[in-house]
Amino acid sequence: MPPPPPTGSTAVDPPRAAVVDAVSRALAEDVLPLGDLTAALVPATARSSVGIVSRSVGVVAGRACALETFSQVDPDVDVEWRIDDGGQVGPGDVVAMAWGTLRSILTAERTVLNFLGHLSGVASLTRRYVEAVAEANPNTRVLDTRKTTPGLRALEKAAVRAGGGYNHRGSLSDAVLVKDNHLDGVSITDAVVRARQLWPGRTVEVECDRLAQVDEAVAAGVTLVMLDNMSLDQVAECVLRLRADGVSTLVEVSGGVDLAMAPLLAAAGADLISVGTLTHSAPVLDLGFDLSRPRGGRA
Amino acid sequence: MPPPPPTGSTAVDPPRAAVVDAVSRALAEDVLPLGDLTAALVPATARSSVGIVSRSVGVVAGRACALETFSQVDPDVDVEWRIDDGGQVGPGDVVAMAWGTLRSILTAERTVLNFLGHLSGVASLTRRYVEAVAEANPNTRVLDTRKTTPGLRALEKAAVRAGGGYNHRGSLSDAVLVKDNHLDGVSITDAVVRARQLWPGRTVEVECDRLAQVDEAVAAGVTLVMLDNMSLDQVAECVLRLRADGVSTLVEVSGGVDLAMAPLLAAAGADLISVGTLTHSAPVLDLGFDLSRPRGGRA
Amino acid sequence: MPPPPPTGSTAVDPPRAAVVDAVSRALAEDVLPLGDLTAALVPATARSSVGIVSRSVGVVAGRACALETFSQVDPDVDVEWRIDDGGQVGPGDVVAMAWGTLRSILTAERTVLNFLGHLSGVASLTRRYVEAVAEANPNTRVLDTRKTTPGLRALEKAAVRAGGGYNHRGSLSDAVLVKDNHLDGVSITDAVVRARQLWPGRTVEVECDRLAQVDEAVAAGVTLVMLDNMSLDQVAECVLRLRADGVSTLVEVSGGVDLAMAPLLAAAGADLISVGTLTHSAPVLDLGFDLSRPRGGRA
Amino acid sequence: MPPPPPTGSTAVDPPRAAVVDAVSRALAEDVLPLGDLTAALVPATARSSVGIVSRSVGVVAGRACALETFSQVDPDVDVEWRIDDGGQVGPGDVVAMAWGTLRSILTAERTVLNFLGHLSGVASLTRRYVEAVAEANPNTRVLDTRKTTPGLRALEKAAVRAGGGYNHRGSLSDAVLVKDNHLDGVSITDAVVRARQLWPGRTVEVECDRLAQVDEAVAAGVTLVMLDNMSLDQVAECVLRLRADGVSTLVEVSGGVDLAMAPLLAAAGADLISVGTLTHSAPVLDLGFDLSRPRGGRA
Amino acid sequence: MPPPPPTGSTAVDPPRAAVVDAVSRALAEDVLPLGDLTAALVPATARSSVGIVSRSVGVVAGRACALETFSQVDPDVDVEWRIDDGGQVGPGDVVAMAWGTLRSILTAERTVLNFLGHLSGVASLTRRYVEAVAEANPNTRVLDTRKTTPGLRALEKAAVRAGGGYNHRGSLSDAVLVKDNHLDGVSITDAVVRARQLWPGRTVEVECDRLAQVDEAVAAGVTLVMLDNMSLDQVAECVLRLRADGVSTLVEVSGGVDLAMAPLLAAAGADLISVGTLTHSAPVLDLGFDLSRPRGGRA
Amino acid sequence: MPPPPPTGSTAVDPPRAAVVDAVSRALAEDVLPLGDLTAALVPATARSSVGIVSRSVGVVAGRACALETFSQVDPDVDVEWRIDDGGQVGPGDVVAMAWGTLRSILTAERTVLNFLGHLSGVASLTRRYVEAVAEANPNTRVLDTRKTTPGLRALEKAAVRAGGGYNHRGSLSDAVLVKDNHLDGVSITDAVVRARQLWPGRTVEVECDRLAQVDEAVAAGVTLVMLDNMSLDQVAECVLRLRADGVSTLVEVSGGVDLAMAPLLAAAGADLISVGTLTHSAPVLDLGFDLSRPRGGRA
Repeated sequence: MPPPPPTGSTAVDPPRAAVVDAVSRALAEDVLPLGDLTAALVPATARSSVGIVSRSVGVVAGRACALETFSQVDPDVDVEWRIDDGGQVGPGDVVAMAWGTLRSILTAERTVLNFLGHLSGVASLTRRYVEAVAEANPNTRVLDTRKTTPGLRALEKAAVRAGGGYNHRGSLSDAVLVKDNHLDGVSITDAVVRARQLWPGRTVEVECDRLAQVDEAVAAGVTLVMLDNMSLDQVAECVLRLRADGVSTLVEVSGGVDLAMAPLLAAAGADLISVGTLTHSAPVLDLGFDLSRPRGGRA
Repeated sequence: MPPPPPTGSTAVDPPRAAVVDAVSRALAEDVLPLGDLTAALVPATARSSVGIVSRSVGVVAGRACALETFSQVDPDVDVEWRIDDGGQVGPGDVVAMAWGTLRSILTAERTVLNFLGHLSGVASLTRRYVEAVAEANPNTRVLDTRKTTPGLRALEKAAVRAGGGYNHRGSLSDAVLVKDNHLDGVSITDAVVRARQLWPGRTVEVECDRLAQVDEAVAAGVTLVMLDNMSLDQVAECVLRLRADGVSTLVEVSGGVDLAMAPLLAAAGADLISVGTLTHSAPVLDLGFDLSRPRGGRA
Repeated sequence: MPPPPPTGSTAVDPPRAAVVDAVSRALAEDVLPLGDLTAALVPATARSSVGIVSRSVGVVAGRACALETFSQVDPDVDVEWRIDDGGQVGPGDVVAMAWGTLRSILTAERTVLNFLGHLSGVASLTRRYVEAVAEANPNTRVLDTRKTTPGLRALEKAAVRAGGGYNHRGSLSDAVLVKDNHLDGVSITDAVVRARQLWPGRTVEVECDRLAQVDEAVAAGVTLVMLDNMSLDQVAECVLRLRADGVSTLVEVSGGVDLAMAPLLAAAGADLISVGTLTHSAPVLDLGFDLSRPRGGRA
Repeated sequence: MPPPPPTGSTAVDPPRAAVVDAVSRALAEDVLPLGDLTAALVPATARSSVGIVSRSVGVVAGRACALETFSQVDPDVDVEWRIDDGGQVGPGDVVAMAWGTLRSILTAERTVLNFLGHLSGVASLTRRYVEAVAEANPNTRVLDTRKTTPGLRALEKAAVRAGGGYNHRGSLSDAVLVKDNHLDGVSITDAVVRARQLWPGRTVEVECDRLAQVDEAVAAGVTLVMLDNMSLDQVAECVLRLRADGVSTLVEVSGGVDLAMAPLLAAAGADLISVGTLTHSAPVLDLGFDLSRPRGGRA
Repeated sequence: MPPPPPTGSTAVDPPRAAVVDAVSRALAEDVLPLGDLTAALVPATARSSVGIVSRSVGVVAGRACALETFSQVDPDVDVEWRIDDGGQVGPGDVVAMAWGTLRSILTAERTVLNFLGHLSGVASLTRRYVEAVAEANPNTRVLDTRKTTPGLRALEKAAVRAGGGYNHRGSLSDAVLVKDNHLDGVSITDAVVRARQLWPGRTVEVECDRLAQVDEAVAAGVTLVMLDNMSLDQVAECVLRLRADGVSTLVEVSGGVDLAMAPLLAAAGADLISVGTLTHSAPVLDLGFDLSRPRGGRA
Repeated sequence: MPPPPPTGSTAVDPPRAAVVDAVSRALAEDVLPLGDLTAALVPATARSSVGIVSRSVGVVAGRACALETFSQVDPDVDVEWRIDDGGQVGPGDVVAMAWGTLRSILTAERTVLNFLGHLSGVASLTRRYVEAVAEANPNTRVLDTRKTTPGLRALEKAAVRAGGGYNHRGSLSDAVLVKDNHLDGVSITDAVVRARQLWPGRTVEVECDRLAQVDEAVAAGVTLVMLDNMSLDQVAECVLRLRADGVSTLVEVSGGVDLAMAPLLAAAGADLISVGTLTHSAPVLDLGFDLSRPRGGRA
C-alpha cells in the first residue's frame, strides 16, 4: 500500500529560480516605466495592514511568488503567512497578513493576486480531481501534462503538487513519450528499442489508442502505456489483461477527462489519469486584499 | 455613431518584443537541456506536413507566437497561415499548415499549441461577451483588466483585441484608477485633484460602489467612473442621471460580470463592461496538430 | 487653485525594477571581466569614508541608483543619504556620506557618479524651467517627452519629477498622440473618432501647427492639443479662444522651447510646456567623491 | 608624423552585441505592453517613405542602432543609408531613406531618433573638439572618459570614434589609472610597482596635480601621466621637461577642458586631452523624420 | 542485439536555445565594450578565407556554436561545414571553411575555437572511452554525469552524444537518483517507495556501495543500480546475481573510472559506465584558423 | 626586485556581477522545472552539517561562487569558509562547513562542487606552473590567455590569479595583440603605428615567430613581444639581444608550453609565459560533500 498522499509541508516547493524570475517579469510588466500612478495619490507615510482573504472555496498555491512580490516591491513590507500551499480555504479565510506603507501594498496588490489566484486556481481544480478519484480508487493518481501556460511551467507544476496531484514530464527533455504523431515516422517496437538504446534507463511511455498497440508497447518493455481517448470498457479490459499477465506497466489514461469521467476511469483500474485542464483551463481562485488603516499597534 | 468594431487585420498585433521573448522562454522551458528525447526516435530526414486544426468553435489568436515558435525551433519550417487573429473557427477548420522535418514539427507542437490554445481561449471568451453585449446595446464595449497571467500581459491583451474586446489599462503606469483600497488613504475629490495635478492630461477613473461616490467623482472631473458590484437598477439610475445632466463621463461596470449579466448591464446603458474572466479564467480553445507524411509534392 | 507642486518626499520614486536592472548593467559594463585593476593596488583592508559632494548648483536625483550601486558592489558599504531627490544643492554641499573599504568605494565611484550626475543634470535643468515658468504663470506646468536616452526612460522621467516637472507619455502604449506624421494617413477627426473607439477612455492628444487644426481637434473632443512650433501670438490667441468658448481642453506647447521662451509661453496661457531638452540634452550636475582616510571613529 | 585621423569607414563600428541589446531594451521600453496606440489609427496597409533629415550641423553616429531598430520593429522596412557614421551633415541633409508600412515607420520613429540624436550629438561635440585641437597641434588627440551614460558605454565610445576622437579606458578592467583617491591608500611609486607586478604589460597611468608627482610617476615608469586641473603654464612646463629628458611618456590633460581651453592645451604640447563632456553632456543633434506618402514608385 | 551506435546525423543536436544563448554571452564577454581593437588595424575591406583545421586526432563537436558565432559576429560570413559533430579528424583535416572580411574572421576566431575546442575535447575523450568499452563488451554504454561546466550543460551533453556516449540525468528535475548523502536521511526502501509515490513512472536509481544495498534496491524495484567505487569482483558478482535472478535492472558503475578500468568493468558485465571526467576534465581538441588571403575566386 | 607574489587576500576577487550571474544560470540549468526530485524524498525538516572536503592536493578557487550558490538555493544555509581562494589543500582538508536543511544541502551540492572543482582545477594547475617557473627564474610570471571556457572568463581569470598566475588580456577590447593572422593584412610596423594612432596609450603586443619580426616589433615600439613556438635557443637569443640593447620590452613566450618546458623558458629569461592549458584543459580538483546528520549542537 502506498504511503498517504503528501500534504502541504511535504510537497516540493517550486524552484526559487523560477519564482524570482517570474515575479521580476510580472512586476516589470506592471510598473514600468513610471511606477504606480495611483499609489502616488495617497500620502507617502500612510501605513496599512492588509489581509489576503479568500472569497470562495479552494486550495492555496503561490505562497513563494506572493512573498517574493512583496519583497521586490518593498523589502520593508512584513508578511505573516497563515495558510501554506496545499491548505484548504473557504470564503473569508485569511491566507496571509501584510503590514507596510499603503503605497507599497497597493502597488503589490494586483501582482500578488494574479499569482495567487492563478496558481491557487490550478491547485483547487487539481484537488477536485484528486478527491473525485480518491473515492473511486485510492491507488489512482492525478497527473498534469505539458499543456501549461507558456513561461509558468515550473510554478504551475508546483501548484498541481500543492493540489495533491503529481507531475508528468517536466519537459521534452526528461522522458520519452511516443505519441500518435511520432508513430507517423516509426513503429512502436522500433521506437521503444531505439529509445532504450538512445536514452538508457529513461522512462519510456507510448500513447495507444487501441489494445493491439498496448500489447506491442508492453511487449517492447515500456514503463507506462497511455490510453488515449479509449472507452471505459477498453480501459477496464486493458487493465485486466495486463494485471492478469502480471505486467507491472503503469496504465495512464488521457484525453479530455472531466470530473465525471475521472472516477469511472479510476474505478476501471487506471493507475494514472492525466488532465490538461488542470493547467490550461483552471479558473482563478477568487481572492482579495482587505485593507485596514491601522490606528495603532503593529502596523 | 461609432465606426464598426475592428476585425482581424485592423486590430493591433502584439508587440514583437513580447512575442520573441515569450517564445524563447517557452522553448527554453520545454527543450533544455537535452532537447526533445522522443523526436530523436524518428529518422532525421523524415519530412512531414501538419495541419493545425480546430476541434471546437472559437476565435483564433496567437498567430505571431506560433510563427515565432516554428522559426525558433527550425527556421526551415514553412508555414502557411490561413486564419488570422480574430478569425472564427469551427471543428475541423485548418488554422494553418506547416511543412518541415518531422522532428522539428514534433518539437514545436506543444509550444505552438500552448500559445495558440491559451490565446485563442482568451479571444474566444472575449468574443462571446462581445456578441452577448452587442445584441443588447451596440454602443457598449467589453474591456479586459490587469488580471492577466503573470508574464503574458501583452499577449493576452492582444488576444482580447482579437476577440473584439478593448484594453483597459496596460499597467499601473499608464492611467489613474482610484479603487476602494486607495480611498482608505484619501478622499475621492482629493484623489482626483491630486491626480490631475501630478499626471496632467491623464485618464482618471474612480471606482464607486454607491451613487454618492459617482456624484463626487463626476464633480471632480473624472474621465470614467467604474461602478463596482452595483445592482442593475443602480447602474441604470446612474447612467440616466449622468446622461440627463449631459455629463460625458464614461460609465464602466465591473465586478464578476458573467455572460448572463453582461447584456443586462449593456441594456442598462453601461458604456464599458470590464471582465477579469477574459484573461484569468478563459479555458483553452481545443486545437491539434494533424500530421500527414508526405508521399511527394511540396513537403 | 491647484495644490502646491510636490517636492522631494511626495514625488514618486523610480520603480525598483528599473533601478536594479540599470545598475547591474552599468556595473557589468564597468567591471567585467577582470574587476577593478587599480583598486587592487590599495590594501584590501584599508577603509575610508567618502563624501559625495556637489561642485555646483543644482537639484539632486538618482539616490536610488546610487544606493543600489554601492549595494551591488559591496553590501557592507554603509551609506547615509543627506539630500533626497528633489533637494537643492550648491558647491560644497554633501549629498551623502559612505563608509567602507577603500577598494569598494573606489570601484563604485564612477558608476555612482555617472548615475547621480546624469539624473541630477536632468532634475536641475527641469528645475530651471519650472522656476522660469512659475514666475510667469503659476498654473503652467513643465513636461518631459519620449525623447529620453535609450534604456533610461524610467529613471530620467523620475528625475524630471524630482526637478518639479511632470511626465508626458511613458511610452507609445499609454496614450494616443496624433502627430503630423500620422496625419499623413488619416484626418484629425477620423483619428480622434477612431482613437476613442479603439482605446476607450484613453487620453487623446493632437499635434496642431495651425489654428484650424486646433478647432478640428477640439471639436472632435481631444483631451489635449499640442501646439507645435507656433508663434507666441498664435499660442495666446488659441488659449483665449478656447477659454472664451469654455473649453477645458488642455493646451500644451511644444517644439524647441528654450529657457527664454518658456516664461513667455506660460504668460500666454499655456497649460503645459513640453521640453525634449530636459532629457536629451541636459548637462550633468558636477559631483565628486571626496575621500578621507579614517583615523578612528565610525569608518 | 602620425597617419591622418581615421574617417567613417576606418573607424571601428560598435560591437553588434551592444547594438542588438540596446535596441531591444529601448523598444521594450517604448512599445510594451499594448504596442503603439496611435499607429493603430492609420490604415494597416498604408505605406510610406521617410527621410531621416538633419535639422542642423553635426556629425552622424548611430547608424547600426537605427538599422537594428527598424529591423526589430519590422524586418520588411527597407532602409537606404546615405551618410555613414562620421559623416558631416547640415540642415536638410538626408541621412537615410526608409520605405515600409506607415505604422512600422511611425512606431520606429522615436527610438531611431533617440539613438541617432544622442549618438550623433556625442560625435558632433567630439568633432568640434577635434577640429579645435587640430588647428593648434596636429599631434594632439581628443579622448573620451568613463563618464558615459549608464548602459550606453559601448555605443557612446563608438560615437566618439565616429567624431574623430579616441577611446580612453573601456572599463575599470582594461588598464590601470591611479587617481588622487587611490593615492589616499598608496604612494605613486608603490602603486606603479605593484601595478607592473599585478598586471604585467598593462598600460599604467597616474593622475598628477603637481609636477613633483609627474616626476615620481615618470621615474616609476608609467605609460601616461594625466595632468589634472593644472594651469596652462604647468602643462607647458611639464611637457617641456619630459621632452627635454627624452621621455616618451604620453601627457594627457584632463579636468573640465572646454572648447576654448582645448586648443591652448594642445598648443602647450599635450599629447591627449580627455573630455568627460563628450559623453556626459553632449546635446543631441537635431534630426527628424520627413514622411511622404508614396503615390507610386518604389514605396 | 541493440541497434548500432548512432553516428553524426542520428545523434541529437543541442537545443538551439542553448546555442544562441551561449554564443551571445561568449561574444559579449570577448568584444565589449570597444570591439576588437586589433582587427581595426587591418583594412576594413580586406577579405579572407579561413580553414578551421585540426592539429591532432579527435572527434568534432560544437558545429552549431561555431556557425552561430560567425553569424552573430557578421551574418555575411559564409561557412561551409565539412565534418559534422561526431566525425573523426586527424592533424591537418579541415573541419570547415569560411569566407568573409578579414576583420570579421579575426574577431570570431577565438570564440569559435573556444567552443569547438572544448566541445570537441569532450567528444574526443568520450570516443576514447566508447571505443575502449566497445571492444570489451558491445552492450556496455558510456554515460556522462551532472559534473558539467556551469552554464554549458546542454552543449556538453550534446558533445558526449557526438562522441558516441549517452546522457545520464539532464538535471535534478528529470529522474530520481538516491545517493549516499540522501541515505543519511532515509532508508533505500523508504526512498524508493516514496519516489514511486511522488514521481509516478519516473526512473529511480540508487547508488550502492555494497551488495546488500543492491539487494535492497532491486527488491524495492529500482530502474537502475549505481555501483559506486566497488571492486571489479564485486561488480562481476553483482551482475551475475542479478542476471541469474532474471532481474532486468540496469547496472551502472561509477566512481573515478579511468580508461584502463573501463574495459574491465565492461567485461565484468556493467550495462552502463558513467564518467565525470568526460565533461569536467576533458582537455581541448587542438584546432586552429589557417588563413589565406584570397587572390581571386570565391572569397 | 619585484614585490613577492600576491597570495589569497591580496589577489583580486572575481567581480560580483559575474558570480551572481553564473550561479543563477547554473542553478536554473540544474533545478528547473520541477526542482530536485530526489531531495524531496528526505524529510523536509531534517537538518545536516556538511564538510566540503578535498580528496587530493591542489589550490582552492571559487569561494564566491560556492557561497552564492548556497545563498540562492536557500538563504538560511550557514556557511563557514575555512580556506580562501589561493589556499593550498591536501586530501581530507576541510575547505568549508555548511549547516542547513538536508534538502537544501543536497540540492546545492552538485552546483557548488561543479564551480569549486573546475575553478580550483584551474588554480591548481596554475600553481604547478607558477612553482615550476619560480625555481628557474623568480622574475618570470605565468599568464593565462583568452582560451577560456565560454561564459566563464571572469571566473577562470580570477582562478588563475588565485593560483598565483597573472592575467593576459581580458578581452579583444582591452589591448592590442597582433597575431600571425593579422599580419595577413598588414605589416608589423604599419600595425604598430596604426595601433598607437587608433588606441593611444594602450598596450601593443606583436606575436613573432622569428627574430627579424622581433626586431621590427621592438623598433616599432611595442610593449611586449610574444615569441610563438620558438625554440629554447631562439628565446634565449632574443632575450639576450633585447637586454644587451637595453630594451625594456617584455618578452612573452607562448605556444603549447608544458610543465617541463616552462622552467626552461624561464631560465632562458622569458618575462612572461602564457599557457592556454590553464583554462582550457585543467582537470577538476576532486572535492566532495561529507555529510553528518547532527545529533545536537549548532546544526
